[in-house]
Amino acid sequence: MGKNKALEAIPANLAKKPKSRFEMVKERHRQTYETALSQGKVDLQMQPLCTFVTGTKDYFTSSCCSGRIMLLEKRGDKKLENFFHRKWHRNVLRIELLEGFNEMVLGELWFKLDPFILHIGCENIENANKVLFAMKNAGVKRGGVMVAQDGKFLIELLGTEQMGFPIKLGSKKLVDWKYLEAILPKANKMLSKNYRRIEKLEGEFRKALR
Amino acid sequence: MGKNKALEAIPANLAKKPKSRFEMVKERHRQTYETALSQGKVDLQMQPLCTFVTGTKDYFTSSCCSGRIMLLEKRGDKKLENFFHRKWHRNVLRIELLEGFNEMVLGELWFKLDPFILHIGCENIENANKVLFAMKNAGVKRGGVMVAQDGKFLIELLGTEQMGFPIKLGSKKLVDWKYLEAILPKANKMLSKNYRRIEKLEGEFRKALR
Repeated sequence: MGKNKALEAIPANLAKKPKSRFEMVKERHRQTYETALSQGKVDLQMQPLCTFVTGTKDYFTSSCCSGRIMLLEKRGDKKLENFFHRKWHRNVLRIELLEGFNEMVLGELWFKLDPFILHIGCENIENANKVLFAMKNAGVKRGGVMVAQDGKFLIELLGTEQMGFPIKLGSKKLVDWKYLEAILPKANKMLSKNYRRIEKLEGEFRKALR
Repeated sequence: MGKNKALEAIPANLAKKPKSRFEMVKERHRQTYETALSQGKVDLQMQPLCTFVTGTKDYFTSSCCSGRIMLLEKRGDKKLENFFHRKWHRNVLRIELLEGFNEMVLGELWFKLDPFILHIGCENIENANKVLFAMKNAGVKRGGVMVAQDGKFLIELLGTEQMGFPIKLGSKKLVDWKYLEAILPKANKMLSKNYRRIEKLEGEFRKALR
């Protein structure tokens, strides 16, 4: 009796049912995203898509990279032994590349173009399928559902534009500047194509993930 | 009555229930695989894994490539405008690369190292999860469930070892032979690492997909 009375005393608008596990996870990812956004840590070319996904009812983004051109220094075989010598999430100028190329490194320096990568979370297989559908329509060929558990589905989406090759070993240049100069416009063009693919994906998400 | 009698007349061992859609699809893929195998069309380094998967009750392989080093001629932006100038599913000799490099091309010639790619089919999400589990244990980081429909699940698995850069434009060499000669041992080493990953994946499949 006393219990029932206590329940009755709660106004209807406050007597919400408790949040589901998914709702809590989504809320946590929303906060992380908003913080990253306010700190300028979300790649510019990914912001419209990620902001849209974060605003939906059924989806969140857990991590993303818009794609980039970089000079990666490898000091060993493991990922932990890699260092960003230079990194650009946009088209690169000749002078920027030249400076990075001329600057001293210890390990093996690679010129790399990486495509976008994006992780989307949702609660069930029906919603995961909507992401796969949009992905296919946008012509995104790489990725898929990586985690498929009750209440927790994670989908990875990957672009395909890429390039990568060693250009320097310590102070020894393996290619000449003329070659890099000829490659840069190609890499910039591929990066732009990669960014157009993100825009297309955003368009498909807006249709499928309402 | 007559119907019942007819049923009774069929010996018990012949009165099998009809094959499910999945069983039929699996059988079709088994036949395609056996034919490809007998014609020498399955990459050597993929054969043990694919033969194991084909022999399981619940899984099939629909397509695979073990990973390769190649000289790819691009005559346009589209995939259809790409031509295999040279292609090796194994370590490459200096002399083989030199011949391919010196030989005439019309378009833009790329040196490429592609990682393995593999497609596994199964009937339901429980079985798909066993593939994801094995994939994770084997350290395969790229891929996931690409199709998730009732009775039809398709998982893509991708290696990560890759390299790619233009080396020639028509008859004009963009890099010198000395550079390619220095790169080849690196590419061979990465390809071997890629093949070891396939072996590891096979080991995990043997544990998880019984």
